[in-house]
Amino acid sequence: MARQTPLSRDEFPAFRKLQTRWADNDMYGHMNNVVHYALFDTAINGWLIEQGLLDPMTSKIIGMVVETGCAYFSEMAFPDTVVAGIRVGHMGTSSVRYEIALFRNDEETAAAQGHFVHVYVDRQSRKPQPLDRLMQLKLEDYLR
Amino acid sequence: MARQTPLSRDEFPAFRKLQTRWADNDMYGHMNNVVHYALFDTAINGWLIEQGLLDPMTSKIIGMVVETGCAYFSEMAFPDTVVAGIRVGHMGTSSVRYEIALFRNDEETAAAQGHFVHVYVDRQSRKPQPLDRLMQLKLEDYLR
Amino acid sequence: MARQTPLSRDEFPAFRKLQTRWADNDMYGHMNNVVHYALFDTAINGWLIEQGLLDPMTSKIIGMVVETGCAYFSEMAFPDTVVAGIRVGHMGTSSVRYEIALFRNDEETAAAQGHFVHVYVDRQSRKPQPLDRLMQLKLEDYLR
Amino acid sequence: MARQTPLSRDEFPAFRKLQTRWADNDMYGHMNNVVHYALFDTAINGWLIEQGLLDPMTSKIIGMVVETGCAYFSEMAFPDTVVAGIRVGHMGTSSVRYEIALFRNDEETAAAQGHFVHVYVDRQSRKPQPLDRLMQLKLEDYLR
Repeated sequence: MARQTPLSRDEFPAFRKLQTRWADNDMYGHMNNVVHYALFDTAINGWLIEQGLLDPMTSKIIGMVVETGCAYFSEMAFPDTVVAGIRVGHMGTSSVRYEIALFRNDEETAAAQGHFVHVYVDRQSRKPQPLDRLMQLKLEDYLR
Repeated sequence: MARQTPLSRDEFPAFRKLQTRWADNDMYGHMNNVVHYALFDTAINGWLIEQGLLDPMTSKIIGMVVETGCAYFSEMAFPDTVVAGIRVGHMGTSSVRYEIALFRNDEETAAAQGHFVHVYVDRQSRKPQPLDRLMQLKLEDYLR
Repeated sequence: MARQTPLSRDEFPAFRKLQTRWADNDMYGHMNNVVHYALFDTAINGWLIEQGLLDPMTSKIIGMVVETGCAYFSEMAFPDTVVAGIRVGHMGTSSVRYEIALFRNDEETAAAQGHFVHVYVDRQSRKPQPLDRLMQLKLEDYLR
Repeated sequence: MARQTPLSRDEFPAFRKLQTRWADNDMYGHMNNVVHYALFDTAINGWLIEQGLLDPMTSKIIGMVVETGCAYFSEMAFPDTVVAGIRVGHMGTSSVRYEIALFRNDEETAAAQGHFVHVYVDRQSRKPQPLDRLMQLKLEDYLR
């Protein structure tokens, strides 16, 4: 179980500021490990929506999550603000690996970091679809 | 079942800006009715912490929720921003009724509004305690 | 702020057994007040699905929540089991008021109780629709 | 991005039946990827509590999550029942890797599977502590 090393802010091209909520803290008084994934989802999908790459209720092609993972280095807790650094780790024919680091308040070093693999599928048939050209071009700018 | 009338922003002395999250939207594509209460909790407790009236892990006196309610007027959805208007509806010996309205993005009229009654108790014994003088003074400024 | 009196099991015609989850407990080591509403939603909608009265992804008529409320009498916590007592409090032309009490493990007296008003609307237009005859007949059996 | 192969029930020594909730389904009508981790947390901690190995509010030694991961093979949705298969993948001096597969209703092959690494620490100092003898003995029976 070799531990990862926490990434720093300068390894990310884009950031999103995220709020914590009262109930994010569990019995141990810190942000529960599950919440990190809710923040990943919010950071990545919020960013895709803003870039015009996703409309969750109408897009014909939607991202299905096929793999996620997270390493936790230090505790965060409500009412902390979390800054999510995001980058594209890899682009396949119909899949994208997003990499996300979560920075607590003004800290320069990640409190947690993880990834999130989307396979893009047809909303109805759920069959994989190649990434369209616009998406490829936009995502290339954020490629690691 | 007489319906309430939506309140407007000028009926509130304090506001907090709150983010929505991807998973706040349920199968119907809108913010699930449960999330409104998570936002109430976050708005009120975040404000109490900022005013120096609560430290959730160390305060000897903590607020137990004994009653909550919400009326829903119109739909909100991720990635909307929600502005919570907050005011104190009533102060008892050891209880406070907080009133909260949720405004969608820049809207002037509430999409939902509700209340939340805290009884202040000793953290260990869970017995009600009278509101301390500092808290009374601070909350009076926000009394309806 | 007149407090309600906790109801007992014999005031309910139907029950559903519900599980708690690790993260239902907040910093105070008890089930957060928001979770009660997630359990109401799960009890009522799960029951409607089982009765053949709702298919959340395909039904043309769906229930929009317009009002909810809850009174909290005593604490519950993961890993408690929660038994939800459900009954119909009122049926209008296009709305139903469901009443739910949450019993902790084997307790006879409610730890919390609340209500939940659905207005039935067309999924597309979101316009209210009269309750259909089948639904009226089924719900009458559970009327308070 | 080599995909994992779904595990089957006969690869697990212990199981826990878990309920889904209404709001587990997101805009795409299926269980959101985050919920899988809430189920992992609930399965493992519920099992530790039942075995007498954890009391979340009083144990001097508690498990901090340092790494989690999940591979998703097929969709689940409320009101499905989920059966969690659990096993111990590895025991270190002060850490345990738990492996969990989630089976939809009566299916024999996992809809999703993942892991979850706990480092056992002192509740106050948050410093790692060696696994005690009782815990080692109990966990050995569930070792992969």
